[in-house]
Amino acid sequence: MGDKIRVGIIGAGRIGKVHAESIAYHIPNAEVVSVTDPYMNDESEAFMKNLGVKKIGKDYKEIINDPGIDAVIICSPTNTHSQYSMEAAEAGKHIFCEKPVDMDIDRIKETIRVVEKAGVKFQVGFNRRFDHNFMALKEHVKKGTVGDVHIVRVTSRDPAPPPAEYVAGSGGLFMDMTIHDFDMVRYLSGSEVVEVSAFGGVLVDPEIGKAGDIDTAVINLRFENGALGIIENSREAKYGYDQRAEVFGNKGAVKSSNDTKSTAVVSTADGVSSDKPLYFFLERYMESFTEEKRQFFDAISNNTEVPVGAIDGLKPVLIAKAAFKSMKEGRTVKLSELE
Amino acid sequence: MGDKIRVGIIGAGRIGKVHAESIAYHIPNAEVVSVTDPYMNDESEAFMKNLGVKKIGKDYKEIINDPGIDAVIICSPTNTHSQYSMEAAEAGKHIFCEKPVDMDIDRIKETIRVVEKAGVKFQVGFNRRFDHNFMALKEHVKKGTVGDVHIVRVTSRDPAPPPAEYVAGSGGLFMDMTIHDFDMVRYLSGSEVVEVSAFGGVLVDPEIGKAGDIDTAVINLRFENGALGIIENSREAKYGYDQRAEVFGNKGAVKSSNDTKSTAVVSTADGVSSDKPLYFFLERYMESFTEEKRQFFDAISNNTEVPVGAIDGLKPVLIAKAAFKSMKEGRTVKLSELE
Amino acid sequence: MGDKIRVGIIGAGRIGKVHAESIAYHIPNAEVVSVTDPYMNDESEAFMKNLGVKKIGKDYKEIINDPGIDAVIICSPTNTHSQYSMEAAEAGKHIFCEKPVDMDIDRIKETIRVVEKAGVKFQVGFNRRFDHNFMALKEHVKKGTVGDVHIVRVTSRDPAPPPAEYVAGSGGLFMDMTIHDFDMVRYLSGSEVVEVSAFGGVLVDPEIGKAGDIDTAVINLRFENGALGIIENSREAKYGYDQRAEVFGNKGAVKSSNDTKSTAVVSTADGVSSDKPLYFFLERYMESFTEEKRQFFDAISNNTEVPVGAIDGLKPVLIAKAAFKSMKEGRTVKLSELE
Amino acid sequence: MGDKIRVGIIGAGRIGKVHAESIAYHIPNAEVVSVTDPYMNDESEAFMKNLGVKKIGKDYKEIINDPGIDAVIICSPTNTHSQYSMEAAEAGKHIFCEKPVDMDIDRIKETIRVVEKAGVKFQVGFNRRFDHNFMALKEHVKKGTVGDVHIVRVTSRDPAPPPAEYVAGSGGLFMDMTIHDFDMVRYLSGSEVVEVSAFGGVLVDPEIGKAGDIDTAVINLRFENGALGIIENSREAKYGYDQRAEVFGNKGAVKSSNDTKSTAVVSTADGVSSDKPLYFFLERYMESFTEEKRQFFDAISNNTEVPVGAIDGLKPVLIAKAAFKSMKEGRTVKLSELE
Repeated sequence: MGDKIRVGIIGAGRIGKVHAESIAYHIPNAEVVSVTDPYMNDESEAFMKNLGVKKIGKDYKEIINDPGIDAVIICSPTNTHSQYSMEAAEAGKHIFCEKPVDMDIDRIKETIRVVEKAGVKFQVGFNRRFDHNFMALKEHVKKGTVGDVHIVRVTSRDPAPPPAEYVAGSGGLFMDMTIHDFDMVRYLSGSEVVEVSAFGGVLVDPEIGKAGDIDTAVINLRFENGALGIIENSREAKYGYDQRAEVFGNKGAVKSSNDTKSTAVVSTADGVSSDKPLYFFLERYMESFTEEKRQFFDAISNNTEVPVGAIDGLKPVLIAKAAFKSMKEGRTVKLSELE
Repeated sequence: MGDKIRVGIIGAGRIGKVHAESIAYHIPNAEVVSVTDPYMNDESEAFMKNLGVKKIGKDYKEIINDPGIDAVIICSPTNTHSQYSMEAAEAGKHIFCEKPVDMDIDRIKETIRVVEKAGVKFQVGFNRRFDHNFMALKEHVKKGTVGDVHIVRVTSRDPAPPPAEYVAGSGGLFMDMTIHDFDMVRYLSGSEVVEVSAFGGVLVDPEIGKAGDIDTAVINLRFENGALGIIENSREAKYGYDQRAEVFGNKGAVKSSNDTKSTAVVSTADGVSSDKPLYFFLERYMESFTEEKRQFFDAISNNTEVPVGAIDGLKPVLIAKAAFKSMKEGRTVKLSELE
Repeated sequence: MGDKIRVGIIGAGRIGKVHAESIAYHIPNAEVVSVTDPYMNDESEAFMKNLGVKKIGKDYKEIINDPGIDAVIICSPTNTHSQYSMEAAEAGKHIFCEKPVDMDIDRIKETIRVVEKAGVKFQVGFNRRFDHNFMALKEHVKKGTVGDVHIVRVTSRDPAPPPAEYVAGSGGLFMDMTIHDFDMVRYLSGSEVVEVSAFGGVLVDPEIGKAGDIDTAVINLRFENGALGIIENSREAKYGYDQRAEVFGNKGAVKSSNDTKSTAVVSTADGVSSDKPLYFFLERYMESFTEEKRQFFDAISNNTEVPVGAIDGLKPVLIAKAAFKSMKEGRTVKLSELE
Repeated sequence: MGDKIRVGIIGAGRIGKVHAESIAYHIPNAEVVSVTDPYMNDESEAFMKNLGVKKIGKDYKEIINDPGIDAVIICSPTNTHSQYSMEAAEAGKHIFCEKPVDMDIDRIKETIRVVEKAGVKFQVGFNRRFDHNFMALKEHVKKGTVGDVHIVRVTSRDPAPPPAEYVAGSGGLFMDMTIHDFDMVRYLSGSEVVEVSAFGGVLVDPEIGKAGDIDTAVINLRFENGALGIIENSREAKYGYDQRAEVFGNKGAVKSSNDTKSTAVVSTADGVSSDKPLYFFLERYMESFTEEKRQFFDAISNNTEVPVGAIDGLKPVLIAKAAFKSMKEGRTVKLSELE
């Protein structure tokens, strides 16, 4: 056990617990030794201790300053991500940072510079890349099954809208929700977005509109390699969490559909029916949270590149900003205008 | 048989034959009595005679001037549609006109005026509305299964690109191919398009680019009722004719997939495989060509409204023009700019 | 038109009309010139005349004795099939006979002898072999996709049970309903049945039991080539006409599922649902009625073997008798016991 | 932690490790405190210690005699199951015993008597009942979705045959492989089997035939409630582990299909293809091994009935014996003949 990577987790909320649990149960070459959260409570402390975590605290500095810690997982609020990342980097720790790195482009760029200078690993938590369905699509693209990519489509609909008060501080639909899809189209196409045109609407909940945001969107994208992309979003799909993609190329197409609890199909006088998509993102994506960290720790162990690097933290934020600009100005926006 | 609707067909090409055959075999209350085509040849004449057509000619005037003819099906080249429609209307004949009515907005409007003044039925040949899959989607929308429509998506990919010389005179992708999809999104959403943003690319065949056209496109749409739309097109899907749609609303979603020759699924060491989509549009849409005319003749018999009227001949052309303009100018184009 | 095969149809009931219509509309090298039925009524006469049939009568002898008739389609009641077939054969006419040829083995054998002596074509109406799905399975078996056949399974469930009075004269489930499946397993396996073990039950309608029949069955089969088979039957599937098969071999498996009216899939809070199987056998198998006769007439024109010959009329009846015997005696019955 | 159920595992082979791991990671109210295996090796010892198991031994008596142990998991060779179960019962320990309990009916009955007298919980390891797909089928049956059960079908095919030497000591196909399916049809139908008719063949590997066994089978069953059943088995499906079932009743049907690694569907000029079924039983059924024990430990904690009791250990063995007898004697065998 002496050669396990020792991990500190900053933030003991829902996603912090997911990380702690998946390391404890599924990742043999790492162990969580310390967790901090300014709002640490009894329940969270018990949860972490039950997983074998020895040090529980409130101040993230306890982790940054702990020489026994090799790697840090940052799942505190978004506005702390870049600061904590830079501090951890300067302390020589590898970093796994939840998305988005920051909502401010300059802060992200600064973070990248600090991380690169420190020579530590820096991975961004775009977990969907590690979902079994999206990985399968990517593998087919890489193998050349669909040939040159012509069109990438992502359909991404949440099961239920967030409260309007959440929306107000979320950075907006493109930054809060579509950011995953912006990462996904880059991942699937293997190319960078160069142009965006976005339409948005308030169709789900007028309160979201009053909070200054949209809840429904369709987005056109153009990639550096000439391919085109489409993303469609809704904050509320009554039938569950709808997460699909399709890549179409000059040799064919590959698409994924949703996971279900069972393969049961019922036929009665009323019709033929099957399970709804899994409703909750943790049900759907649980494996992906393990897989992303497995690859993160392997990159540390083998000193290889992380699968989702600093640039992947920057680009989706840029695309989100371009999408907002396009929607506002009623025109196609080039990414180069923002860089 | 005395009370059958007597039909004249102008144009004996591929689609003219489809119309003649489906009337002869499947529509008991109509009969084709006359067919003309300036390029009428022995094979076409034999084909029509075998179906029981008595009069075969070269000049469409033979049909227009024939007092024994109740209805005209116009499937001559596009640039004759509006003229023949107006002449037929003035001769008091009901009209079934292949799409598009014209590429010129003013000509279409003139045709509509003439047709309305004459008080004859005028149906446009958007046959896909009568396809069993798209009809099923529409029925669900009408029944309220999906609730208020939020997003309409149409995926439309041809199995193989046309020759570049065809492309040159086709009016361009949006007018030649997407026009069906523009009609479909109006049909499925039950609302008119108010804004368009289109991205196009030349990814299939550089010759198409040299001919001044595109072969791949993604298009954002906004509808009068607030809904958003997406169309994606390609001139070449190697696996066959790909024709799908999805309507998403506040109660759920309904989508269609492609028809196949059989339901056979093969499982071997190589994988699990099933039939490709039907390749040829006549295979896929054959029934729809019968159904559209069945409803046309019923509208005549019962003096009710045709299911696809004059306005449906105008709107998709307007949207196509808006799409070209959007692509050219890199901005969202309002339909009101063109009207 | 002089070289069309001239056809007489004996029996103007539902299936007689299906044959007449499919020839008129879909089979260019044949024409129905005469139809007889002892219960011919105005509606049937009008139906046939509308298809262009010139001679309408009551006595089947008018067809047998008509030297202008090349081929006869026999769709009169089962107990007349063998007699009419023999008379037609002796009159030198090719014969298409609905199934079963007879319920008596000796009568079938006599019919075969007469037909063979006359040297005319004799095809039995096992139309399901010509269904697009079952043909696809057979093609995969022939191509070797599944390798050597190990297990053939047929699931065959009617949408609704027949009236008990029909059951009484039907010959029983195995003769009336399963007979199609006995033909299907021979067709799919490419081998003859040598052993049968059948279990039956009365689960759908006690009246069927009182009439001395069963309404639910599972049947084990062994084929000459070593393969095993399973048939399962029910007289009532509330969700529609359930007609599926699977062939499993040393290289893999191929299975078919049911046809539906559309490919629409609906997702709502209540679940994910799709169309039920087509309910009525004429909806499901309409194409197959055309295809079987197309091949029959082609066999006449080209003087080649018919696709479903006299032996195919005999074997399923033998298997049905073996199944009854197995059920009654509680043991495996060899076909050789009955031959 | 003091109130966790303390568990001893007898047998540290593949399945013993599965049990140990799933308890350690997924079952909070139990902990493995001791593991024995006469062939315990360094690798197995390290595996268990890494999971936190304190006592590692060779002699199962160490577990039986350990007063600190509440429950025993027996995954030693089949011929020791009944003996160890009885010893554990007499020592007052709850028992989870891998299937089959014994191949000898009298020994199973004796075990049941001893267990019942001791008043301990006794669960048999028919894990497939706890598979998400089969549980979904059962839930629909219980809810009445399909109404009264008329036909139960289980398709069960292994991905690859066992070595002929294994077959020799396996008890034969019906005891070794079909035993799971016999349990499944009882579970799904909710009724006991009363009659069996079985056909077997040697189609996969002649060596299996030389070892006195079969590798392919179809089996008819009749249940106490009148329902009928079908099982089909093969030792080798080239496309993977094929595990499906269907329950058909007077209100409809419910069926399950196989799990796959992803939902990706590829469409190319070669066809439309998707993932093969998971190949290995541990991939397919991993969750079920956790779920069966979760319910076992809950039954202990709450002193409720175990979900798979002693009778479930007896019945499938009886059915297997009846199936062998039917195959040998060429007749339907009643279970009452063996009881």
